[in-house]
Amino acid sequence: MVKVGVVGGTGYTGVELLRILSQHPKVEIKAITSRKEAGTSVEELFPGLRGKVNLKFSNPDKVNLQKFDVVFFATPNGVAMQQTEDLLDAGVRVIDLAADFRIKDVSTWEKWYSMKHDSPSLLEEAVYGLPEINRKKIKAARLVANPGCYPTAVQLGFLPLIESKVIDLDHLIADVKSGVSGAGRNAEIHTLYAEASDNFKAYKASGHRHHPEIQQSLSNLAGKLVNLTFVPHLVPMIRGIHATLYANLTKNIDLQRLFENRYVNEPFVDVLSSGGHPETRSVRGSNFCRIAVHRPQEKNTVVILVVTDNLVKGAAGQAVQNMNIMFGFNEMLGINQVALIP
Amino acid sequence: MVKVGVVGGTGYTGVELLRILSQHPKVEIKAITSRKEAGTSVEELFPGLRGKVNLKFSNPDKVNLQKFDVVFFATPNGVAMQQTEDLLDAGVRVIDLAADFRIKDVSTWEKWYSMKHDSPSLLEEAVYGLPEINRKKIKAARLVANPGCYPTAVQLGFLPLIESKVIDLDHLIADVKSGVSGAGRNAEIHTLYAEASDNFKAYKASGHRHHPEIQQSLSNLAGKLVNLTFVPHLVPMIRGIHATLYANLTKNIDLQRLFENRYVNEPFVDVLSSGGHPETRSVRGSNFCRIAVHRPQEKNTVVILVVTDNLVKGAAGQAVQNMNIMFGFNEMLGINQVALIP
Amino acid sequence: MVKVGVVGGTGYTGVELLRILSQHPKVEIKAITSRKEAGTSVEELFPGLRGKVNLKFSNPDKVNLQKFDVVFFATPNGVAMQQTEDLLDAGVRVIDLAADFRIKDVSTWEKWYSMKHDSPSLLEEAVYGLPEINRKKIKAARLVANPGCYPTAVQLGFLPLIESKVIDLDHLIADVKSGVSGAGRNAEIHTLYAEASDNFKAYKASGHRHHPEIQQSLSNLAGKLVNLTFVPHLVPMIRGIHATLYANLTKNIDLQRLFENRYVNEPFVDVLSSGGHPETRSVRGSNFCRIAVHRPQEKNTVVILVVTDNLVKGAAGQAVQNMNIMFGFNEMLGINQVALIP
Amino acid sequence: MVKVGVVGGTGYTGVELLRILSQHPKVEIKAITSRKEAGTSVEELFPGLRGKVNLKFSNPDKVNLQKFDVVFFATPNGVAMQQTEDLLDAGVRVIDLAADFRIKDVSTWEKWYSMKHDSPSLLEEAVYGLPEINRKKIKAARLVANPGCYPTAVQLGFLPLIESKVIDLDHLIADVKSGVSGAGRNAEIHTLYAEASDNFKAYKASGHRHHPEIQQSLSNLAGKLVNLTFVPHLVPMIRGIHATLYANLTKNIDLQRLFENRYVNEPFVDVLSSGGHPETRSVRGSNFCRIAVHRPQEKNTVVILVVTDNLVKGAAGQAVQNMNIMFGFNEMLGINQVALIP
Repeated sequence: MVKVGVVGGTGYTGVELLRILSQHPKVEIKAITSRKEAGTSVEELFPGLRGKVNLKFSNPDKVNLQKFDVVFFATPNGVAMQQTEDLLDAGVRVIDLAADFRIKDVSTWEKWYSMKHDSPSLLEEAVYGLPEINRKKIKAARLVANPGCYPTAVQLGFLPLIESKVIDLDHLIADVKSGVSGAGRNAEIHTLYAEASDNFKAYKASGHRHHPEIQQSLSNLAGKLVNLTFVPHLVPMIRGIHATLYANLTKNIDLQRLFENRYVNEPFVDVLSSGGHPETRSVRGSNFCRIAVHRPQEKNTVVILVVTDNLVKGAAGQAVQNMNIMFGFNEMLGINQVALIP
Repeated sequence: MVKVGVVGGTGYTGVELLRILSQHPKVEIKAITSRKEAGTSVEELFPGLRGKVNLKFSNPDKVNLQKFDVVFFATPNGVAMQQTEDLLDAGVRVIDLAADFRIKDVSTWEKWYSMKHDSPSLLEEAVYGLPEINRKKIKAARLVANPGCYPTAVQLGFLPLIESKVIDLDHLIADVKSGVSGAGRNAEIHTLYAEASDNFKAYKASGHRHHPEIQQSLSNLAGKLVNLTFVPHLVPMIRGIHATLYANLTKNIDLQRLFENRYVNEPFVDVLSSGGHPETRSVRGSNFCRIAVHRPQEKNTVVILVVTDNLVKGAAGQAVQNMNIMFGFNEMLGINQVALIP
Repeated sequence: MVKVGVVGGTGYTGVELLRILSQHPKVEIKAITSRKEAGTSVEELFPGLRGKVNLKFSNPDKVNLQKFDVVFFATPNGVAMQQTEDLLDAGVRVIDLAADFRIKDVSTWEKWYSMKHDSPSLLEEAVYGLPEINRKKIKAARLVANPGCYPTAVQLGFLPLIESKVIDLDHLIADVKSGVSGAGRNAEIHTLYAEASDNFKAYKASGHRHHPEIQQSLSNLAGKLVNLTFVPHLVPMIRGIHATLYANLTKNIDLQRLFENRYVNEPFVDVLSSGGHPETRSVRGSNFCRIAVHRPQEKNTVVILVVTDNLVKGAAGQAVQNMNIMFGFNEMLGINQVALIP
Repeated sequence: MVKVGVVGGTGYTGVELLRILSQHPKVEIKAITSRKEAGTSVEELFPGLRGKVNLKFSNPDKVNLQKFDVVFFATPNGVAMQQTEDLLDAGVRVIDLAADFRIKDVSTWEKWYSMKHDSPSLLEEAVYGLPEINRKKIKAARLVANPGCYPTAVQLGFLPLIESKVIDLDHLIADVKSGVSGAGRNAEIHTLYAEASDNFKAYKASGHRHHPEIQQSLSNLAGKLVNLTFVPHLVPMIRGIHATLYANLTKNIDLQRLFENRYVNEPFVDVLSSGGHPETRSVRGSNFCRIAVHRPQEKNTVVILVVTDNLVKGAAGQAVQNMNIMFGFNEMLGINQVALIP
C-alpha cells in the first residue's frame, strides 16, 4: 500500500482526490491537512464521504509528511513551492495540483501569478504531468507538476496536429468552456447559484493564467513559438470542460486517422467516430478525454472538439494517473469508473 | 460469474443498471434487449459507456433469456408480467424494476395502472424487494418486485416510527420531491430543459400510482390500514429524491436513538447526527439512503428528512442489492461507490 | 411623480426594486445608497440595468433622505429600525423590506434576530404590508413592514381556510421550497453554483425566523394561537417559492369556491381551476400569486399549493404594491408585467 | 391600434411574441392560430399568460387573416411561404419569424431546408429584417424575413469590422453558444432536462442551416464572398446566445471607438466599456444586444463577444422591432423592458 498525504483538502480538487483515493485499491490515505478546518472530520465537511473517509483534517504544522510515500498538494498556488524541497530530500515524491511548477520560466510565472517563486531551482527537475506526452519522465520523476484543467484539454486536442506538422502555428484558436467547479470552492459572489445559473459569459478574454502554460507546451511540441488565442467561458454546469479548437491546415491529411493513430494506445483518450460531438457529461466523474475531429465544408479550417471532467482528467484523476505511473501500477487503477449519465 | 440478461435497457433505469452491472466483479452482462434499438451498439446510445459495455441491443424475440441466471426487467409497466412465468419455470430468477409485481391486490393494481394483469397468480409469490424489511425473503426469492423510487424513500423514513408504534397512523404526510430523471427518458414536452429548468411544481397532488404501493407497505408494517397523504413534486435536478415526512407523536421517545438503533446494521441506511439535513447530492450516484430526524420546538410533530438517488437506491442500485442477496454475495458488492460531489 | 429613495440596493431585493421602480410611470428614483459600493454606478454592478438606471450608489451619510416622499429599506435586518423614526418625523413614508417591524412582540423578535430592537415604540404603529389582509391600514400607514417571502406564500394559502374556520388549527403544516436568490447576494459557500445546483435539501427544519412571523399572522386571523410546523427547503432555481400546505378539515365545504370567492377581487391572487398545479415559473418576474386547492381521495386532509416569485410578490413587488396603495395609485401600476416563460 | 394575427403560436417564439405583444400599447392581438391546439385557451397552454391573453387558439382554416394589419408567422419552416402571397395581395403586411424568406438563392435554401420553395418570386421583395442594416427598407417593406437567432448575434458582432474593411475575410470564426429554448418546444429526447442539464456540447459542427444565412449577409456587407467557420453549441440555460467571434486584423485601428461609433445611434445595441464581458443574463427577456471588443496581448486577432436573448432580439422582440419600424412607431415601443436579473 502506498502511504499518501494530502495537503489542503478542502477545495474541489481536494475532495475529488479524496473521492478517488478512498476507492483506490493500492492507497492508504494517512493524513489530510487544512489549517482552517483542523479538527473537523472530513465527512462533516463532505457528507458524500460519510463512511468512506474516516479522517479529520489535521493542522499542517502537526503532521510529519516526510513519513509518507507521496504527498499531493491540493493547495492554492504558492504553497507547494515552500514545502517541496524538504519532502524530496526526505525521499517523498510530490505531485502538485496547483501551478507552482508548471511553467519553466520564472519571470513568466511570477508575472502571471503575482508572487515571487520560492523554489526556482526545482523548476527544471519538475516533470509536467501530462502522461500522453511525458509518460517516461513521469515514471522516474520525484516531482510532478500536474497540468491545469484548460491546458490538459487544449493540449490533447492540438497534440496530433502539431506533432504531425499539418497546421499553421501562427493562428491557433482555443475557445474553451468550463463548468463552475473550475472556479473553486471559494465564497465569491460571481459564482453564486443565482449569478452563474441560467447564464453564460466569457471571462479574462484578454489574458488568463493558463495561456502561458498552454503556449509553453505547444511551443515545446512544435519546436518553435506558436501563436495562440485562448478565450475561457463559464458554463452553468458543475463539472466539465469543452474545448473547441480551430486551426488552418497547411497539408491535406486524413484527420480522423491521424487522431485515431495518435491515441490508439492511450488508455484515457477516446477518439469518437467521424462526425461525432463529445458531450461533457460523457466524462462526468471519469478520467476520460473524448475527442472529435471536424473539417466543415472540407475547407482548410479544422475544428477539434475535446471534453474532459475538469476535476478528474483536468486535476485529481490525472494526479492519480501520474501516481499510478510513478509507482508502477496499472495506469487505470482506481480511475476507471464509468461516467455518471444521466 | 452470474450470467445476467437485461430486458429493455434504453431508459434511465436501464442505463443505470448497465453502469452498475458493468462495474460489478461477479457479473457478466450477456444480453440487453430493446425492440426499438435492436442492432444499435449500447455505446452509441449512451456515450458514457464507451469502452465499458461492448454489446449491441438485441431484438427481444431473438434472445433466449432462459440461459441466464437472472433477468432484470427495466421495461415499462406491463412487460415483465408477460414473460416472468416462463423464466421462473426455466429456473431463471427475475428482478422486475417496473411495477408489475409490487401490489398484492390485483384490482388495485389494475385500477392504477389501467391495464389487465397478466400473471395474477405470481403476485403472492413475488417478494417486495426492500431489503431493510424483507432481506430473508429476498434471499430465497425466485421473483423480486423492486420497489418504486418514492416508496423506497418514504418507507425507510416511516419504518422505525411505525414499527415502534409511536405515531398516529391516521395523519401521515409525505411531501416528496424528485429529480427529473424520475420521469424517464421519454420525449415529452413537460420534461424539456426549457420547461423543467428554473421551475418547481407539485404534480398528481390528488393521486399518484406510488400511493397505493406505499400505503400497502406501511399498512403491512402497522398491522392496520394507515392514512397517508402523498404529494410528489418535480425538482430541477437530474437525480435525487428528498422526502419530508410529517407525523404526530403519540408517545415521548428518543427519536434519534430510535432511528440509529433501527438502522445500525443496515449497510445502506445512514442516520445523520441530530439536527442534520441530508442533501440529495450526498447520495448522487450512490446506493445510500441518508436520514435525519427533527422535532421542531419539541412539539408533537416529528419531521423526517430522507434522501436517496432515485436511479440507484430508488431503482437500479437496489435491484443489484437484491441480486447480491439472492446470490449470496456481499450485499455491498459493486454498489459501494462514493457519491459524486460536487 | 413620487420621489423615491432606496437604502441599501446591492442585494437581490434591492436590484429587483430598481428593476421595478425604473419601469414605474409615477416614480422618480432620486438616490440609492450603499456604504460599500458608494461611487460605483448602478449599471456597473448590475449590467441588466445599463441604460435604465443612471445613478451611482451614494454614501448613506451624504444623502438627505428626508427630502423624498418615500424611502424603501432593502437593507439587512437591523438597519431600518435605526433610521425610521427620523424619517417619519420629517414626513417621509417608509417601507421596510427587512424584518425590523414585522413582529409585534419585541422579545420574540430579539430572540430570533439576535439583536436588541432599536425602535420598539414603532412596532405598534407599523402596518404589516400584506394587502390581501391589511389594505385599508396600508393606505393610511406611515410605516409599512413588508412581509417575508415565505410568510407571504404561506399566509395567502391558509387565509381562506382560517377565515372560514374550516380547519383544525393545531396541526398546520407548511412544507415550503425556495429558489436560491432567497438566500441573498452574499458570498457564502453553501449557495455557490457548484454546491446548490443539481441538489435539494431542507434547512433549519427545527426553526426558521419566518416561523414566528407566520405564526403571529395566522393566529391574528384565527383569533387564537395556531400550531404550525414549517420546514423550508432550497431548490436549484434562481427565483420562486412553492408552498405545499396541509391541514385537516373540520367541516365539509366546497374548497374551490371558497378560494375563488375569497380572492375574486384581489388583483394579484389567481386561483387555478380545480385540479391545477401552479408552477413557480408561471410567476417568474411577476407580482402574481397562483394557488390551487386539492383534497386527495376526498379525505379530510386539504392540500394547498401556492407559488410566488420570492423577489417580487415576496419582496420588491409587494413593496411597490404597498407604495401604490399608500399613494393612491392603481394597485397594479408598474407591477403588472407578464411572467417570463420559458 | 394595429390589428395583429399570429399564425402558429404554440412554440417558444410564438409564446414570446404573445408575451411581448400583449404588453404593447399600440397592438390588439386579434387571433392566434394552431391546428393542433384549436379550441384550447392560450392561458391553459401558457399559464404565465393567465389574465393577460384572453384568446383561444383558432383553427387556421377558420380565421380570415386578411382582415388584419400585420400577420406574424411563428410557424415551422415552410408554412409562411404558402400563405404570404395572398396576404400581401390583400394589403396585409407579413413578418415571418421562420426561415422561408431569409435566403435569396432558392437552390441554397432548398438544399439546407430540404424542401421545395413555394414562393420563389417573393424572395427578391422580402426584406431581411435586421434593423441595424436595413432600417429604411424595413420601413417600406410589405414582407420582412426576420433573421435567425444565431445570424443576428454573429452579424451584429462582425458588422463594424466588415464595414470598415479592417479584417481578413478569409478566416472568420464564429463559436456560438445557445440556450436550450433555441431548439424549440418539441418533444425530443436530446433536449430533455435530464439530457441537456449539467452538460455542454457542440452540434452540427460540420454544417448548420444558419451558416448560409450568415454567409450571405456578411458577403453582402463585404461586397465579396467571406469564408466563415461557424460552430454552434448547446448551453444548459433556457434563454440566451453568446457569440465569440475571431478575426485577423489587417489594419491597426481603435476597435473600441469603431464599435461605439457604429452603434451610437442604435437603440438596442450596447457596446460595453473596454475590457468588458457581456453575460447572457444581462439581456434575459430583453431586446438588447450587448457587445464587447478584445484584442488579447495586442496581437492581430480580434475577439468580439456578443450576447442576445435568442427569443427576443433573436426572434420575437426583433419581429416587434420590425413592426414598430413598419408602422412608424417609436422603435422601442413595447420592447424596452429591463432584463430579469437575477
